[in-house]
Amino acid sequence: MSPTPPPSVRRVACIGAGVIGGGWVAHFLARGYDVTAWDPAPDAEDKLRRLVTAAWPALEQLGLAEGASPSRLTMAPTLDEAVADAEFVQESAPEKLELKRDLLAQLDAATPPGVVIASSTSGYPMTDMQTAAATPGRLVVGHPFNPPYLIPLVEVAGGERTDRTAVEWAAEFYEAAGKSVITMDRELPGFIANRLQEALWREALHMVANGEATVEDIDTSITEGPGLRWAFMGPMLTFALAGGEGGMAHMLDHFGPSLKSPWTRLEAPELDRALRDAVVDGCDRAADGRTYAQLVAERDQGVIDVLRATGRLDGPAR
Amino acid sequence: MSPTPPPSVRRVACIGAGVIGGGWVAHFLARGYDVTAWDPAPDAEDKLRRLVTAAWPALEQLGLAEGASPSRLTMAPTLDEAVADAEFVQESAPEKLELKRDLLAQLDAATPPGVVIASSTSGYPMTDMQTAAATPGRLVVGHPFNPPYLIPLVEVAGGERTDRTAVEWAAEFYEAAGKSVITMDRELPGFIANRLQEALWREALHMVANGEATVEDIDTSITEGPGLRWAFMGPMLTFALAGGEGGMAHMLDHFGPSLKSPWTRLEAPELDRALRDAVVDGCDRAADGRTYAQLVAERDQGVIDVLRATGRLDGPAR
Repeated sequence: MSPTPPPSVRRVACIGAGVIGGGWVAHFLARGYDVTAWDPAPDAEDKLRRLVTAAWPALEQLGLAEGASPSRLTMAPTLDEAVADAEFVQESAPEKLELKRDLLAQLDAATPPGVVIASSTSGYPMTDMQTAAATPGRLVVGHPFNPPYLIPLVEVAGGERTDRTAVEWAAEFYEAAGKSVITMDRELPGFIANRLQEALWREALHMVANGEATVEDIDTSITEGPGLRWAFMGPMLTFALAGGEGGMAHMLDHFGPSLKSPWTRLEAPELDRALRDAVVDGCDRAADGRTYAQLVAERDQGVIDVLRATGRLDGPAR
Repeated sequence: MSPTPPPSVRRVACIGAGVIGGGWVAHFLARGYDVTAWDPAPDAEDKLRRLVTAAWPALEQLGLAEGASPSRLTMAPTLDEAVADAEFVQESAPEKLELKRDLLAQLDAATPPGVVIASSTSGYPMTDMQTAAATPGRLVVGHPFNPPYLIPLVEVAGGERTDRTAVEWAAEFYEAAGKSVITMDRELPGFIANRLQEALWREALHMVANGEATVEDIDTSITEGPGLRWAFMGPMLTFALAGGEGGMAHMLDHFGPSLKSPWTRLEAPELDRALRDAVVDGCDRAADGRTYAQLVAERDQGVIDVLRATGRLDGPAR
């Protein structure tokens, strides 16, 4: 698809240099790329250089690629110049559909043929964003998490008119650039992680709106509770351990009825045999032969390591 | 309320010794209490001792209280004997309303007057569980997270017939026993953390049911994404940072419209002025004078520490 094989890319263009676009710039610089950035805001360059300077000590701790340097950032005066010799383009403009649609068409016109252009959109399907582009086949979604220079996840998806090779190229490129990639085989508004965190966020907003919990309660309930496990073990495998030695099968059979309880404003799906088996089988695959005892030991060590890393091991309370 | 002041409690009874009850036993032993456990299952003692043995190395790392020892666990032959001289009772029976209602009435009859009895229920309101008890004033919810010996959070709430002093006593006791407590001033099915994780869990189940994501995708999307931040910074403050220097106010004004997007099956509340201000003010209080730059630096260090602690810092990918 793209003229450059993913691991050989050296020049990346970042379009839009706010919190997300600037975070991408910092990430690509730390991984040793030459980065050209463009942002129409008058104070964009100052803000971007501040962001990179602030992020650099963290990136040094993560380990820089050979030759990585903030000095390899160039601010382009125009969009056309920003992408003129790019081997990959990451678009991180404000989250407005019309704006992204026009901008992606402009980028498509200015970027060398075959070069993949990825959008950081938090949830628009590429099908809706690629309609104005002359060669929509190279337009993909590459959705990062804040800050892109630290959180590994990138969700990659194409639109109806995206070439499958562009999706594959983008996934390979992000992996080569040090990210963790989930490639989606269909378009889903909000992709995967944002749908999950959006459900949690909406329930939290309902609780604040109704005076059921404060903002502080909500944050504490996560950081002192399930958030400690989710840093290294996802909600599915975590819940499988709640089933004890019987695993997810026991958990679903035991707690399944609570799906009908009004524990959130979100209605649950019917827990039929097919769904139950899909979840149980998925957890078995994720366990990958590890016994319940092994998983418990791993989880326990993980929680302790996270507690220690985040400064919460001050010894016993009594 | 209770005859023993919370910090002076030495003898705790744990009723039900499965995954949660057994986890409580391990926690109380590690904090130096004498623990008496009762569970009607024939193999309960073997299972419980295995659980405590498996958890002990983790508890040693956390730091044991003086005199803490697995040998301070006694298995009681009957419920009455288990609670006969308890200064606090933690009930962790299976999640069935009728069963808990009857069991709490039995415990209330057998436990010395004034001693607080807490239920580990995942979501039943105490009002519904305390109806059969003779002295319901001392019955509270003390909802832990799995495993109770590692995850600090306990949600404390009373029912309509619970004395306010019992709720306060329980909150003080759990703090003295090394837990992080959220005291709720009202009953809310699922309390706070379970409502949040249940919303996420239900959205995940919908996605699996519809073939939109695999179990593995869901876990990866959390552990490689937002889960890394949630170990030490809750969803509210995390989202405030997504607003850049403009904070939560900018974030809500910028991403507010996406609340109407179909990013989850859960409908969002109306983002009116009151809700917006409650969220913005709550985040300001949580920031507690820290600037945006300070919060970003803290978050970045936190993510790096968590990545390192969970073995994910293997240096740059290229």
